[in-house]
Amino acid sequence: MVSEDYKSMLNGKSVIRQMSEWAAKRGAEIGYENVFDYSLGNPSVTVPQAFTDKMIELLQTKNPMELHGYSQSQGIPAVRAKLAAYLNKTFDMNYTAEHIFMTTGAAGAIAHAVRVVTKPGDEVITFAPYFPEYQQYVNRTGAVLKIVPADTEAFQINFEKMEELLNEKTAAILINTPNNPSGTVYSTKTIQTLAKLLEEKQKEYGHDIFIISDEPYREIVFEGVDAPYVSKYYANTLSCYSYSKSLSLPGERIGYIAANPECTDAALISVMCAQISRGIGHNCPPSIIQLAVAEVLGLTAELSVYETNMNLIYDELVKLGFTCVKPGGTFYIFPKALEEDSVAFCQKAMKYDLVLVPGDSFGCPGYFRMAYCIDTEKVERSLTALRKFVETEYPRS
Amino acid sequence: MVSEDYKSMLNGKSVIRQMSEWAAKRGAEIGYENVFDYSLGNPSVTVPQAFTDKMIELLQTKNPMELHGYSQSQGIPAVRAKLAAYLNKTFDMNYTAEHIFMTTGAAGAIAHAVRVVTKPGDEVITFAPYFPEYQQYVNRTGAVLKIVPADTEAFQINFEKMEELLNEKTAAILINTPNNPSGTVYSTKTIQTLAKLLEEKQKEYGHDIFIISDEPYREIVFEGVDAPYVSKYYANTLSCYSYSKSLSLPGERIGYIAANPECTDAALISVMCAQISRGIGHNCPPSIIQLAVAEVLGLTAELSVYETNMNLIYDELVKLGFTCVKPGGTFYIFPKALEEDSVAFCQKAMKYDLVLVPGDSFGCPGYFRMAYCIDTEKVERSLTALRKFVETEYPRS
Repeated sequence: MVSEDYKSMLNGKSVIRQMSEWAAKRGAEIGYENVFDYSLGNPSVTVPQAFTDKMIELLQTKNPMELHGYSQSQGIPAVRAKLAAYLNKTFDMNYTAEHIFMTTGAAGAIAHAVRVVTKPGDEVITFAPYFPEYQQYVNRTGAVLKIVPADTEAFQINFEKMEELLNEKTAAILINTPNNPSGTVYSTKTIQTLAKLLEEKQKEYGHDIFIISDEPYREIVFEGVDAPYVSKYYANTLSCYSYSKSLSLPGERIGYIAANPECTDAALISVMCAQISRGIGHNCPPSIIQLAVAEVLGLTAELSVYETNMNLIYDELVKLGFTCVKPGGTFYIFPKALEEDSVAFCQKAMKYDLVLVPGDSFGCPGYFRMAYCIDTEKVERSLTALRKFVETEYPRS
Repeated sequence: MVSEDYKSMLNGKSVIRQMSEWAAKRGAEIGYENVFDYSLGNPSVTVPQAFTDKMIELLQTKNPMELHGYSQSQGIPAVRAKLAAYLNKTFDMNYTAEHIFMTTGAAGAIAHAVRVVTKPGDEVITFAPYFPEYQQYVNRTGAVLKIVPADTEAFQINFEKMEELLNEKTAAILINTPNNPSGTVYSTKTIQTLAKLLEEKQKEYGHDIFIISDEPYREIVFEGVDAPYVSKYYANTLSCYSYSKSLSLPGERIGYIAANPECTDAALISVMCAQISRGIGHNCPPSIIQLAVAEVLGLTAELSVYETNMNLIYDELVKLGFTCVKPGGTFYIFPKALEEDSVAFCQKAMKYDLVLVPGDSFGCPGYFRMAYCIDTEKVERSLTALRKFVETEYPRS
């Protein structure tokens, strides 16, 4: 019989997706250039030409049997070795190929990472505001996602609330820095405090607690911001990466897990992930894309536009009286709405063709997300709409 | 803590993989050209130039934001529409885009298909000899794989034994035709008998029983062989396909599920699969590869070499006194070993640098598999080794 479980999920449509669909529909009416669509985190800058050139070169010169052949489930050995060397050079680590597991993007990485360090019934802690898919990513493995309420002062970590959730069943902490949706980058102090707390709890409970560090925005960090490499501060760290944002390749589904060489069973994590793949239908990312990204390690798309956009929006929001933590990276900003009900707030904004996403979706009601991965010219035009929206709907007394 | 469950799987190394590793090691000693490696089902013919040209054209001409952009979880709508039209024309079906779900190869397709029509505890029936990964593909969803013993006369279906396994918990039948490892193609009569039996059982149990039809070898069918399209004969059919074999693209992980338009909840299968993706980290296959295969629908690599190889091997096996069902397709043959213990038989063959895989791995002890996706010239040379092996180890009395 068709699964009632998955059928029932059809009713739980993502709010982000709904907003995005509304934007597309509205665009059909008035021209999409006139809809200020801040709904989707879809990169707005183009892939570097060097990546395209490398793909073409592989197609023109490499033996097709090797180019398109089966790779090991863990990924192509030469790709994993290059990646380990790149990470070592960049972050002063000691990875070898055996610590790397190639995945179909960050979703694939997290699907393996959660399974490799939990068993059904274990708890995984994450922090509001958080990417809504974490619910599916974690709960569908049989583990249970627990949410620490937001530190709305700075969108760092509310350690007091975190300690209330830590217990013997805690198997992993899922963090995302730079963060979607807040745009915040965890400071070195935050990471150090987290590491220290987890070291203590590991001793207290007598078992490992892993950090699963979701890092697709690692390269989108703004001027002067301290962006520590999480794994440097805590041995039991699995770094999950995707090239979707840094290379503007979201459709190509390419990423990896890098297991800290000092973590428990470090040499086994990648081979165990290959076992996990057998049950979830993964079987490693496309070979040509593995080979191509390995040729452009360290290269990024022209990411500076995101900082330009952020500054324009942040300045205007502050001018308009919003409470807002200034993002340290990503292409998101997460201001406080001008009324308690952020769903109502975002609905009113639609009258001004501003497409914002309520914070409720990210476990943080009363706030809203703007994904400013759009052209700067459009950002500038949107500020007029934003002003009009605020001045009309929320006139200052 | 690192999962004991997945750690324990590390000991259960695939016999196919072990044989293949032995072949590589032996190749390093005596030259790989002298090892008659029949272990792996890895296509031996090259991808069609038209596919490569199409990939290059996409890279050179298509807007990179579209080319590498996020696609819908179900796959790119235009790709799904083209595929539906192609299947309709080829098999006289009535698919529309909504019945198609794009996947990362057949493993991805089966991962979704099993989850969409079963719930934990349900039973899925398959037929020996079967692809060993079916154990993981099914049991890791929470459903339970049940194996019907082989019909060793013809490697069609042993219906008597099948009926013994059918019960109220049976939710799906997983078939693979043309078959790995037997090379057999299910006849129209087999499919019709299966369909009739399942129709009856659906009525008797008052619930759907789906056929999950794993069809990566659909185009590798030999002269004069009747190869029915399963879905034409049974409404509740999910056809799972991969381009790995037909286009010689195993590393690129591209395939699909096509839900019969007459099946229960036909319009929901694909959208439900997109929900399943969220929990297993799938999130649709790479966009550029979706777009490229959609441009070469119906094209195949030069597959005729497999029939040439099959005839050479089959004739020699018969001459040497083997009992052997003549394959109707694929690049596999599955003869009866010359002693009861097929593991011992395959070990003896290694002395002659013949790499064969014992049938035990496929739920059919006493037989062995040869994957003849190798150069014809090497097949010819291997026959001398085969003769020597048989005449020395199993002299006729």
